[in-house]
Amino acid sequence: MPSCVLAYSGGLDTSVILGWLQDEGYEVHAVYVDLGQPCEDRQAILKKARDCGAKSSQIVDAQEELCRDFAFPVMQFQAKYEGWYLLGTSIARPLISKVCLQIARDLGAVAYAHGATGKGNDQCRFQLAAEALNPAVEVIAPWRIEKFRKLFPGRTEMIAYCDKNNIPVKASVSKPYSSDENCLHISYEAGKLEDLNVNGVELVEFGMTVSPRKAPDAVEEVTIAFEKGVPVSVNGKTLSPLEIVKTLNTIGGRNGIGQIDMVENRFVGMKSRGVYEAPGMTILYTGHRVIEQLTMDRDLMHLRDSLAPVVAEMVYYGFWYHAKMDALLAFNKEAQKNVTGEVKLALYKGNVMVAGRTSPNNLYDEGIATMEGGGSYNQTDAEGFLRIQGLPGRVQGRITPRPY
Amino acid sequence: MPSCVLAYSGGLDTSVILGWLQDEGYEVHAVYVDLGQPCEDRQAILKKARDCGAKSSQIVDAQEELCRDFAFPVMQFQAKYEGWYLLGTSIARPLISKVCLQIARDLGAVAYAHGATGKGNDQCRFQLAAEALNPAVEVIAPWRIEKFRKLFPGRTEMIAYCDKNNIPVKASVSKPYSSDENCLHISYEAGKLEDLNVNGVELVEFGMTVSPRKAPDAVEEVTIAFEKGVPVSVNGKTLSPLEIVKTLNTIGGRNGIGQIDMVENRFVGMKSRGVYEAPGMTILYTGHRVIEQLTMDRDLMHLRDSLAPVVAEMVYYGFWYHAKMDALLAFNKEAQKNVTGEVKLALYKGNVMVAGRTSPNNLYDEGIATMEGGGSYNQTDAEGFLRIQGLPGRVQGRITPRPY
Amino acid sequence: MPSCVLAYSGGLDTSVILGWLQDEGYEVHAVYVDLGQPCEDRQAILKKARDCGAKSSQIVDAQEELCRDFAFPVMQFQAKYEGWYLLGTSIARPLISKVCLQIARDLGAVAYAHGATGKGNDQCRFQLAAEALNPAVEVIAPWRIEKFRKLFPGRTEMIAYCDKNNIPVKASVSKPYSSDENCLHISYEAGKLEDLNVNGVELVEFGMTVSPRKAPDAVEEVTIAFEKGVPVSVNGKTLSPLEIVKTLNTIGGRNGIGQIDMVENRFVGMKSRGVYEAPGMTILYTGHRVIEQLTMDRDLMHLRDSLAPVVAEMVYYGFWYHAKMDALLAFNKEAQKNVTGEVKLALYKGNVMVAGRTSPNNLYDEGIATMEGGGSYNQTDAEGFLRIQGLPGRVQGRITPRPY
Amino acid sequence: MPSCVLAYSGGLDTSVILGWLQDEGYEVHAVYVDLGQPCEDRQAILKKARDCGAKSSQIVDAQEELCRDFAFPVMQFQAKYEGWYLLGTSIARPLISKVCLQIARDLGAVAYAHGATGKGNDQCRFQLAAEALNPAVEVIAPWRIEKFRKLFPGRTEMIAYCDKNNIPVKASVSKPYSSDENCLHISYEAGKLEDLNVNGVELVEFGMTVSPRKAPDAVEEVTIAFEKGVPVSVNGKTLSPLEIVKTLNTIGGRNGIGQIDMVENRFVGMKSRGVYEAPGMTILYTGHRVIEQLTMDRDLMHLRDSLAPVVAEMVYYGFWYHAKMDALLAFNKEAQKNVTGEVKLALYKGNVMVAGRTSPNNLYDEGIATMEGGGSYNQTDAEGFLRIQGLPGRVQGRITPRPY
Repeated sequence: MPSCVLAYSGGLDTSVILGWLQDEGYEVHAVYVDLGQPCEDRQAILKKARDCGAKSSQIVDAQEELCRDFAFPVMQFQAKYEGWYLLGTSIARPLISKVCLQIARDLGAVAYAHGATGKGNDQCRFQLAAEALNPAVEVIAPWRIEKFRKLFPGRTEMIAYCDKNNIPVKASVSKPYSSDENCLHISYEAGKLEDLNVNGVELVEFGMTVSPRKAPDAVEEVTIAFEKGVPVSVNGKTLSPLEIVKTLNTIGGRNGIGQIDMVENRFVGMKSRGVYEAPGMTILYTGHRVIEQLTMDRDLMHLRDSLAPVVAEMVYYGFWYHAKMDALLAFNKEAQKNVTGEVKLALYKGNVMVAGRTSPNNLYDEGIATMEGGGSYNQTDAEGFLRIQGLPGRVQGRITPRPY
Repeated sequence: MPSCVLAYSGGLDTSVILGWLQDEGYEVHAVYVDLGQPCEDRQAILKKARDCGAKSSQIVDAQEELCRDFAFPVMQFQAKYEGWYLLGTSIARPLISKVCLQIARDLGAVAYAHGATGKGNDQCRFQLAAEALNPAVEVIAPWRIEKFRKLFPGRTEMIAYCDKNNIPVKASVSKPYSSDENCLHISYEAGKLEDLNVNGVELVEFGMTVSPRKAPDAVEEVTIAFEKGVPVSVNGKTLSPLEIVKTLNTIGGRNGIGQIDMVENRFVGMKSRGVYEAPGMTILYTGHRVIEQLTMDRDLMHLRDSLAPVVAEMVYYGFWYHAKMDALLAFNKEAQKNVTGEVKLALYKGNVMVAGRTSPNNLYDEGIATMEGGGSYNQTDAEGFLRIQGLPGRVQGRITPRPY
Repeated sequence: MPSCVLAYSGGLDTSVILGWLQDEGYEVHAVYVDLGQPCEDRQAILKKARDCGAKSSQIVDAQEELCRDFAFPVMQFQAKYEGWYLLGTSIARPLISKVCLQIARDLGAVAYAHGATGKGNDQCRFQLAAEALNPAVEVIAPWRIEKFRKLFPGRTEMIAYCDKNNIPVKASVSKPYSSDENCLHISYEAGKLEDLNVNGVELVEFGMTVSPRKAPDAVEEVTIAFEKGVPVSVNGKTLSPLEIVKTLNTIGGRNGIGQIDMVENRFVGMKSRGVYEAPGMTILYTGHRVIEQLTMDRDLMHLRDSLAPVVAEMVYYGFWYHAKMDALLAFNKEAQKNVTGEVKLALYKGNVMVAGRTSPNNLYDEGIATMEGGGSYNQTDAEGFLRIQGLPGRVQGRITPRPY
Repeated sequence: MPSCVLAYSGGLDTSVILGWLQDEGYEVHAVYVDLGQPCEDRQAILKKARDCGAKSSQIVDAQEELCRDFAFPVMQFQAKYEGWYLLGTSIARPLISKVCLQIARDLGAVAYAHGATGKGNDQCRFQLAAEALNPAVEVIAPWRIEKFRKLFPGRTEMIAYCDKNNIPVKASVSKPYSSDENCLHISYEAGKLEDLNVNGVELVEFGMTVSPRKAPDAVEEVTIAFEKGVPVSVNGKTLSPLEIVKTLNTIGGRNGIGQIDMVENRFVGMKSRGVYEAPGMTILYTGHRVIEQLTMDRDLMHLRDSLAPVVAEMVYYGFWYHAKMDALLAFNKEAQKNVTGEVKLALYKGNVMVAGRTSPNNLYDEGIATMEGGGSYNQTDAEGFLRIQGLPGRVQGRITPRPY
């Protein structure tokens, strides 16, 4: 019997898929990749998987890896999808595939199944990552299979299937939208959010953040230290990558930081609407740029800023394990070499303001920058600088004059 | 006697320069380009110029042109210098040069003088614009001339010069920093702001905005309509470009929108520190992107986002009248063709949140995007889509396997 | 009965498809878009289509449009796919779709069929263009349909089908590869060329060019004039776009210009091997850049050169009727504004060498460029220029020294 | 007495400068950085320097380093300035500065002098490299100093100075242009070449190459092996970087490979005219791309091709020791990881044609690429692929129809 690893969440969809894969003749191994999803009882999930017939079930906590090796490099690139979205779900998917494929390799499984639909981005990220790591893996996305969709046209049929197969179904409170949560962020989409007339931040019950309006009417300062672009401490306390994100989620969350509501372009071609909250990462993106302002070369920064949309696109689409991304990450690592320093940010009701910054690699030189006389900069140099900068324009102005 | 046009502000520096240019043998025409600088009495400025010996003096109100032809195209490009700065001063300088050069042409003046120092960006913007429009113009930047700097090593010598020459000096309240204001924004730099240990937004007395902390504890909604990327109305009222900016400055200003404090890289090579407020333009940048989210093609947006840092760099450096900018503006005009629609934004204590958006060109199609069954999108298509998207990765995974 | 327009070539494949579409219940209109394919008797093709049951058949000569509106803008962008391929087939496909869809609209046809396989790039170009022009069109690519492939697993079954249906089959000389020819170029691929051990330029019997080895042992000079980037005359004779390409094909062809053999990446993911000849366009690309060297601003050229691979990718993939391409073409049009002049090229056994160039917009100024003393350039300016250009590097060298 | 290192060539200019620096109060150390300049007697140069009063003189052979660490990474990036120029002089200048500054450090010299004019690019490359390595170094470019230019307005005054100071002057054959030669290439500019009416390749007496017309009327094949993008052998013989370049110079030179004549844009703003020959590097650029065609990921290549003009600009301007270049080189190193293989090229009278290629990392898969039936590619996948690729265009076509 061929063996399949299933990225298992314990929810209705993947429980049904767990059963269906067995119906299709697979031996199924359930893998719950813990990236910080909300879940009261992880052991219950494992038990449920086994009760549903899984040959094995296991939990792998990959939160530290997610923050350190996935989210932080993307943050260092200042990559935001279409200018706004911090890629909290996008960047998690390749890691889930990686963990599942490692287990598949160990268990000799030939297939890898996931519960993402055929309409969204997640299927792309799961599959592209999986196939890049193991080109021979058989990726099973039941929601893309017409036969499966016909079996389960709606929630009712899925519950009926569970009843028949003794799969316990938790009476979940039906929310008017779906959400995806990990330690980096929560995204909200679908359901009532598909109607653009609905105010996204009004509708959603945010899980990590209060509304700016509900946040305290007082500034909270937070200090973050970076080393080579990597955040290493908060408020003077050295922390692991995950601890940093969680600490900043708490601090940022209570100050209403990082809620957005946007229409974005999916990899599969349509525009869709998403609401997001990412309090900790929002703070990190800002703090990181502040240290870059002190330490990064101008021309390098300008090129990097032009490449950031390229990186964001690749991460969003799911091209993480990709030769182009490898090269961009090598670029990034070199670019972050000197991005070391400490930033103090003032948080206030949704705002992240700069309150201070220092760096051992500080390239800001008051003696050069000063508008006062003296200093080590010779203003006369600017004369020659500009005569030469303007030379092409002057020649063109003679040959092909510009009307004015 | 050669004739010179002076970009005149009425302040101490350009008044001294007005006198000095005459000492150097120039007949001087003072031009006050009104871009919305704070100024109680424009007629007094004209009179002062003539009292200082100006052969002529005039005011040209170019505020509408500044908003329409300069600030709006830059905003449409979503161009922010080094990710943050909305270029409010940068974009004004070429227009000042253009107006002065038009007058120089009319008056037969051969030279164009300005009061910008040899350390900053403004000299670049003034000069590059001027020379691109008239390659033969003699640009005089007294602060770059050693002889002038020796004559006027400090404020004391400048006041003494004014006294001697009967140039009226207004006892200005000495501020601990300098500022530049126009209808788009106010920038603050130099003086105490050169010390990075000073909290910029605490130190500065902002002229357009209250602190988010002082803003009302209530959401204010504002609705902006765009046509082909151009904002055309606020709260249902059709307004001119300048009126739109001013209206949004008022609305945004009272809600604490658009204050930033950053370290940036000047064109002349050093890092410098700037504090800015641009309430109206901050709102426009956000609102404009919201309409783009509905109306702009994905791939076009991603390329545009990669070019935005290029545009920001050119504007910041002063390459406005430039063949490369001409081509980028042609790109932009075409790109904005369908960016028509109306956005409702919720302003609250420094936050600009999306509260609604509509467009006649809305490309968001609920029927396609929906995660519900049905709709016009066939999930099975995604199977082939991803098999082909993943093909290069699968081949590479076979030939040059990726460790995992 | 639904009606279908078929892009008809008169060959075996599209003749079979013509029959099969009728079997499938379509009324078929055959359209032969004449882009300069080799064809002795166009009337015979039309007759053959009608003999095969086509409801109507027509020829549309779109060669001038192909050169003027498709090939020339791509050439002006100096766009070469993966550095080498001049996109002669790629750029023709959208035009075929456009012509077919115009006819479909006139005839009320709902479907558009073509004979491209499911493995290549042409299907992409046909379909993406067609759907962008008419989103409702039903695109029929029989080779992508399993049922069709099963009916016609090979050439034998196709010939049998023709025999049965009285479709005349020309006893074509079987070539060891397939080719695509239009007025711009001929491409060769598939068959024996799929084996990389085969020397491409040795195997192929080129249709437009002699081998450099067979070309005359004498230099032939050719002069081309450009106006705003558009070639307008050859050797002093004003010609239409098509005439220019054909004239240069003849001249370049006899001198062995423009043969290449490369491995390239298809849009559908695999690497493939192509051999190409494009004598006229190769000459135009070179000549055009020579005029740009005289007339185009440096920074504009550098940005354009960075965008050229983007344009080449889009054209190769088939994204011609695309919002991003529209914006890039607007950029291009502005960029070509001053690219006017005349170039003399020396052709010799595969080489295209520059023998002379002039332009009314010539920005090369001997008086500035000269290494002799004098001239209008002040060498002292370079001192200030470089002190400022080097400032960031000097500061970084102090703070984060570079080992040497 | 302050001490200065002089980049010494043994020619008239640097010999005069050697004397003049002593007149100006410097102790001078002459350094001849051997990059393959044509020079019969290196010992005579050293002696001449000492005869001219140099405190010390030495030769450093840096040819291997030039090829390995400078020219090859630039070639791997396929960087050509303005599409044509292979950067043979540009890339040599930073290395000369590095060698001179190493010696300056060892000898305690505070200054670094070179003989480049104030009009060209070389001064930029020398100085930017030097200041990036040692921000405190005093760069002396006598030709940029008005006093020096007045002393030596022409060749006559320089020879008179030599006579007076017993500096031996070789009666050089006066050429109608100047040239710069190293192991990578020879460039020709200035003098009669400043007149665009002069045919560059006719005028110049090339030193490395015969004219294609004089080359043998026979194909010569050459085989080059690459490892991770680095050429490692020619015709089966493992060679050092320098040996590879020299071997290919010989082979390419006799076959008339690599002559160009172009108008280019200098960093100091004007257009200038250059004639170049680089037979070996021209062959390497082509051969390298052929191996990339087999081994490099498509999307990585397309991005790299967009960055190549950026790299070329930086190298040409002199920004080699630069944070942005460091990051780009890190990108490049990762990108070249799999570029291993062997290419056979057919050289014939100026043409470089592909005659064969193999690679252990060959991503070209005949089984996938084949246009024959079968193979591992499922044509039906293309249906879904294109339906999704075309989705944005179809939606736009409905909402904002495109006229056709």
